[in-house]
Amino acid sequence: METAILRLHCRDVKGIVFHVSRFIYEHNGNIINAEQHAEPITHRFFMRVYFDCSELNCTRENFQAGLRELAGKFEMDAELTFSDQRKRMAIMVSKYDHCLYDLLLRHQYGEINADLALIVSNHRDLESVASAFHIPFFHVPVTVSAKAEAEAKTLALFEAHQVDFIVLARYMQILTDDFTGRYENRIINVHHGFLPAFKGAKPYHQAYGHGVKIIGATSHYATAELDMGPIIEQETIRVDHTHSVEAMVAMGRDLERNVLASAVKAHAADRIMVYQRRTIVFR
Amino acid sequence: METAILRLHCRDVKGIVFHVSRFIYEHNGNIINAEQHAEPITHRFFMRVYFDCSELNCTRENFQAGLRELAGKFEMDAELTFSDQRKRMAIMVSKYDHCLYDLLLRHQYGEINADLALIVSNHRDLESVASAFHIPFFHVPVTVSAKAEAEAKTLALFEAHQVDFIVLARYMQILTDDFTGRYENRIINVHHGFLPAFKGAKPYHQAYGHGVKIIGATSHYATAELDMGPIIEQETIRVDHTHSVEAMVAMGRDLERNVLASAVKAHAADRIMVYQRRTIVFR
Amino acid sequence: METAILRLHCRDVKGIVFHVSRFIYEHNGNIINAEQHAEPITHRFFMRVYFDCSELNCTRENFQAGLRELAGKFEMDAELTFSDQRKRMAIMVSKYDHCLYDLLLRHQYGEINADLALIVSNHRDLESVASAFHIPFFHVPVTVSAKAEAEAKTLALFEAHQVDFIVLARYMQILTDDFTGRYENRIINVHHGFLPAFKGAKPYHQAYGHGVKIIGATSHYATAELDMGPIIEQETIRVDHTHSVEAMVAMGRDLERNVLASAVKAHAADRIMVYQRRTIVFR
Amino acid sequence: METAILRLHCRDVKGIVFHVSRFIYEHNGNIINAEQHAEPITHRFFMRVYFDCSELNCTRENFQAGLRELAGKFEMDAELTFSDQRKRMAIMVSKYDHCLYDLLLRHQYGEINADLALIVSNHRDLESVASAFHIPFFHVPVTVSAKAEAEAKTLALFEAHQVDFIVLARYMQILTDDFTGRYENRIINVHHGFLPAFKGAKPYHQAYGHGVKIIGATSHYATAELDMGPIIEQETIRVDHTHSVEAMVAMGRDLERNVLASAVKAHAADRIMVYQRRTIVFR
Repeated sequence: METAILRLHCRDVKGIVFHVSRFIYEHNGNIINAEQHAEPITHRFFMRVYFDCSELNCTRENFQAGLRELAGKFEMDAELTFSDQRKRMAIMVSKYDHCLYDLLLRHQYGEINADLALIVSNHRDLESVASAFHIPFFHVPVTVSAKAEAEAKTLALFEAHQVDFIVLARYMQILTDDFTGRYENRIINVHHGFLPAFKGAKPYHQAYGHGVKIIGATSHYATAELDMGPIIEQETIRVDHTHSVEAMVAMGRDLERNVLASAVKAHAADRIMVYQRRTIVFR
Repeated sequence: METAILRLHCRDVKGIVFHVSRFIYEHNGNIINAEQHAEPITHRFFMRVYFDCSELNCTRENFQAGLRELAGKFEMDAELTFSDQRKRMAIMVSKYDHCLYDLLLRHQYGEINADLALIVSNHRDLESVASAFHIPFFHVPVTVSAKAEAEAKTLALFEAHQVDFIVLARYMQILTDDFTGRYENRIINVHHGFLPAFKGAKPYHQAYGHGVKIIGATSHYATAELDMGPIIEQETIRVDHTHSVEAMVAMGRDLERNVLASAVKAHAADRIMVYQRRTIVFR
Repeated sequence: METAILRLHCRDVKGIVFHVSRFIYEHNGNIINAEQHAEPITHRFFMRVYFDCSELNCTRENFQAGLRELAGKFEMDAELTFSDQRKRMAIMVSKYDHCLYDLLLRHQYGEINADLALIVSNHRDLESVASAFHIPFFHVPVTVSAKAEAEAKTLALFEAHQVDFIVLARYMQILTDDFTGRYENRIINVHHGFLPAFKGAKPYHQAYGHGVKIIGATSHYATAELDMGPIIEQETIRVDHTHSVEAMVAMGRDLERNVLASAVKAHAADRIMVYQRRTIVFR
Repeated sequence: METAILRLHCRDVKGIVFHVSRFIYEHNGNIINAEQHAEPITHRFFMRVYFDCSELNCTRENFQAGLRELAGKFEMDAELTFSDQRKRMAIMVSKYDHCLYDLLLRHQYGEINADLALIVSNHRDLESVASAFHIPFFHVPVTVSAKAEAEAKTLALFEAHQVDFIVLARYMQILTDDFTGRYENRIINVHHGFLPAFKGAKPYHQAYGHGVKIIGATSHYATAELDMGPIIEQETIRVDHTHSVEAMVAMGRDLERNVLASAVKAHAADRIMVYQRRTIVFR
């Protein structure tokens, strides 16, 4: 069975569900699942349709063209992806391995609907992990003076490997605005704090100092503004006075791998839409 | 704005979303939200459509008739409710007041989309609570020898008050099959254990004896088989060796009110469908 | 059985557990439970001892004197409370009733080890609730021009009713530093946000705007600095794009009553110690 | 600093905390942390003392002898372990790798206070994982006819490697009573269901069939009675109608690794005591 996913958003007006379902029906597609969401404050309507396109009565190109026409009529922002065109994922890491292992294993279990194209790191430490899982590994050192070069080299690697989206699996370098701008809503970062509290460095130390009773981790799309991109997933866990900063760091490893994996799975499955600074994560 | 909710299930065949959305569109309804679910094992398709029916181009009766025709074609089990016909709820209690207070307050906050018609109890203890919230209260004592009479009296009260569904808010009497049979999937019970573990009496004592590290509570539709009706909601909380049975009972009060309230809100909002022994709870 | 609770903290030196347990043993007390905590960063040692003092071989005054001597030797900050001297609690409310009902019910169930002395409110709305539970209610209106007078009147009421600690159950007035200073670590507030994020007004609106996937509530001791006092308890719950601000407010009610009740129970049971801006909440 | 952990339980009589702390003090030990628990139903008293023994004024042998004397006086069941004698752990696996990877990584991060002596498997599939982490791997095939031989071979390996406790990381063979009897309360198993519900095979299928709204996993000590040994840790997660059995299996992998790791960390740190069928897990 060939399937496709259509995601769209537009102003919330009458008949959208009908017009979209008619468009698919008239081209001989069959809706397997559809979700909608109407944002009450912005009056924006979001829709995700998962449909069987095995027996389309036209070429995919013509279907795309028809969709563009429909989208134009309603001023929709629409995106169509065919399930047989699997996305290609890059992972960027430094020295921490817990998120990397987690992604490699979930990829192996088939939880992530994407191909793992390559791993790029500013250190050599995790090269053997990559090779144990048979994933191409590239060492791109980053120095203060040659950051631009390092990013250029990384971008070239991504292009050569036809990368669709990037996962920062505790990558400890700040990317330039130019870099994040090229992959808008396609770079997934994990922050080891419960955003918007505890932005920036050493969030567990900040949490300990505040005496909070719950710590968290956050996955989000990377944007120019540090740790302020659209939040995709968050998870929290209880702590108390018996937990040292070190204990929080250990507990944080579990939170981090969970929220990052959750975001990667959702992105790979085309379940996320971004509008302004909020995400719609369909299930 | 007048709105309506259509819930249906049928064999999972092609084009249902389209035919349903066309039916609504052609009668000048406007879909606000629609959810579907396809059960992979039973090949059953479930759908809930929430739509604006302010400008229907026919009478409600004709719309219902048209729907029956559509339902017949696909062998659908379909139910249509209009939002201006609020459901009427009865609460049955004994002596515990925590679930009752919780429901009264949530009803007052507007969280429960139903009218609270009456409270029936086999004791007089909570009469003053009912009167503080201005809800009619009826004392129907239950004795072993006169159980049938008590149920008959209760059913008469429900009929007189046009009751649509019943909430057993820690009602400590077992209802007969005849009683539950009259309100199939319309009697909501709360069990103070994490079903299917710890059925029957004294579930917290059972949990303590087993040394479990998590306790729970369950809301479900009451059926002839005790504590085995379709589960609507469950919630769990961690315990450890420091928690006595009494402590578990206290924690259980919180769980019980939460799962019961959640089930009542879902039922009142027509978000639940039951198929075989499983519930679909749309959000 | 007469029991007592000793809470102390001091610099972390050798033999404290021994010296404290010897002191109790030599006065014929019997330790039922003891908890310690050593803060690794501040090198501070915290201890809570719950002991049977039915058969003390001296008067309570002499026991207190002996304890002062021991405390002096180790430069301890020590506090001793006898369980037969129940604390007296005041509740301050405005118009929201969910936290008030919750405290009244838990008090009735015996979950809170304190007497409920009185309820003070700047509005009359909840007077009938207080009277249904037979708790003295005092209406103390607060105006911008006469805030000092209102606080003076409230303090006089607290003195007349021998109040030991105060619970702000969604009391919607900001207290002066003078007021909070008189009841240091004895005023418990609930903030409807996950502190330190979303301080101040309309935290659920802030959370919605940030697109967070988890919201929370926090109970803490009130200090001069708004929403920055030592955190006692926090709780979080998942939200997603389907939750409007109103839905978050409704979910928040549950979080608020939970974290406030948890803090009140811990305070009443002498389970909390405060050091710098962090709390130790023994279990 | 040399440290030791003393765990004991006995009938709940007066003065135990004092006598134990005096014993340690008189031998020049220094209590770092002590926890007690009194079981109200069985009148059993449990205690765990973590103390500095760097400057004991006698040999360890003499200290042990003195402790035996004290234990005799109070009919204590007492166990003393010195922290410089790290426990040796064996892992048994079959083909699933998620729990194995999790334990290997946590061991590497220093979260598990034990040496990983060897991995035994009835299949060769995970040999390369063991070798990537430099852990000795032994393939001991198990056949119905030669089960006793396989167990004998395994026991011989454990003896040769001085194994203190065994972790069944989704080991898919049932061990004989003889085997489990030799390592009483020293074999940690993970069950992929919320015990005592869903014992035995295919618990996620059972959970799906029951339409539960929460699934769980359980770690416990293996005993002769299948899946009925003392529970160490449990974790639950919400599911709904959208989760297929396969989705539950995937979610279950996360639960399983969490509860198993939690139990292994607690066991390795001498934080668990077992009495009758319940565990005390000190923190």
